Amino acid sequence: MHSVRFTAETSSNGVLERDFIVGEVPGVLWSPVSGSDHAPLVLMGHGGGLHKKAPELMARAHENVTTWGFTVAAIDAPGHGDRPRTAEDEQVRADLRQAMLAGETERVESISVHYGISLAERAVPEWQATLDALQKLPEIGTEAPIGYGGGITLGTAIGIPLTAIEPRITAAIFGGGFFVHEALIEAARRITVPIQFLLPWDDEHVDRQSTLALFDAFASTEKTLHANPGDHRNIRWYGLDHGFLARHLGRVGTSPA
Amino acid sequence: MHSVRFTAETSSNGVLERDFIVGEVPGVLWSPVSGSDHAPLVLMGHGGGLHKKAPELMARAHENVTTWGFTVAAIDAPGHGDRPRTAEDEQVRADLRQAMLAGETERVESISVHYGISLAERAVPEWQATLDALQKLPEIGTEAPIGYGGGITLGTAIGIPLTAIEPRITAAIFGGGFFVHEALIEAARRITVPIQFLLPWDDEHVDRQSTLALFDAFASTEKTLHANPGDHRNIRWYGLDHGFLARHLGRVGTSPA
Repeated sequence: MHSVRFTAETSSNGVLERDFIVGEVPGVLWSPVSGSDHAPLVLMGHGGGLHKKAPELMARAHENVTTWGFTVAAIDAPGHGDRPRTAEDEQVRADLRQAMLAGETERVESISVHYGISLAERAVPEWQATLDALQKLPEIGTEAPIGYGGGITLGTAIGIPLTAIEPRITAAIFGGGFFVHEALIEAARRITVPIQFLLPWDDEHVDRQSTLALFDAFASTEKTLHANPGDHRNIRWYGLDHGFLARHLGRVGTSPA
Repeated sequence: MHSVRFTAETSSNGVLERDFIVGEVPGVLWSPVSGSDHAPLVLMGHGGGLHKKAPELMARAHENVTTWGFTVAAIDAPGHGDRPRTAEDEQVRADLRQAMLAGETERVESISVHYGISLAERAVPEWQATLDALQKLPEIGTEAPIGYGGGITLGTAIGIPLTAIEPRITAAIFGGGFFVHEALIEAARRITVPIQFLLPWDDEHVDRQSTLALFDAFASTEKTLHANPGDHRNIRWYGLDHGFLARHLGRVGTSPA
């Protein structure tokens, strides 16, 4: 079993940022400078083509640390960020670019779906190994409640199969903006933990009904769908329930700092 | 033009409750005991078969008064609460009961839609006359920002056509749980103010797609769909944005007391 190897450390605005590696997977851990023993741990997935320190992810991570005192972890998905791309990664990206330029929407969807499945098959065990290693850190341990902090698109395409097989995750934020396929629907049917699902109402390429079917599939008795107008690339969220993870990760009764 | 005639007054938990009549329409006004000069005014509609002091409506009204300092007004819809039923009201109720007992779902929907249209045609001018009269009260006046506080089912079937033609309403909460018809979709297309829309995800009788089409129809650039599992009769809402009206009725920056 791999351990967490810290490679860099910095801090700003009360947030400690530590880069790490588990096996060959690079990640980053954000936590309060003032310490965070056994605070809830939130796993965040980045969007397709992005990486563990994408600005939008960083902003959400900082908010989770400064508002709720959570620890937040993110890792690069296979072929993303600081990770090497395999021949398959390169081929898929070339095919996808070509299909998009040619306006072949069905081929774009088919390639995206297959690549998403391939990425999730590789990323899920990587998240589990990362979680194993993080739980060996004394400040996290096995007592820290764990949530998946999601993010839309690829973060959800990986997060759903991860949450479906990972009993340590007890609440999850997911979202739309990617092509939904049958294996994801089936994984959603196995998920029973509380879910917050963010739907960009006017996604340019993704059929809205397929995403609504995904929300419908979650077996969770407690789930919330939140939709605002816009495409996942330009959406502005408002009226969001920012206390969702805090309520479900055992910070009931706490309020924003 | 009618005036507000107060008929009874009581108070509990810091909330002043005043029954009133405008013309032949009985209503109730809730406001802080400590006074509420020109505070935002929230209009609340009750559900089908219910009345202006239904428990769920009362609870929301009290929350609006005590948390945000709003004034809240509710009136009985035609044929509801303290109002006499016309021969049409009695006939429709008898027809509806019969169709439900016989399990004639299409006839239930047809009767409900036509009755909803009839109620809205009568209720919209009543709400406007009530608003005219309330604005003549010195503690409200024409300065108080006005929102529609909705409620699902009938409160929305009346609130949508009201908001579509009433420029004094600058934000509205609507919700599902009733049969959507084309005239409502057309009214929604004329609405541009910020909307919060509450969807019971598993309504027993109402087609989910028709309600999603209604949300889609609002021309508002700012609109939020919020769905939780359940039928409108037994739904438990959570993760709601309770500050929606406060933000849009000019109480920006205020926080719950």
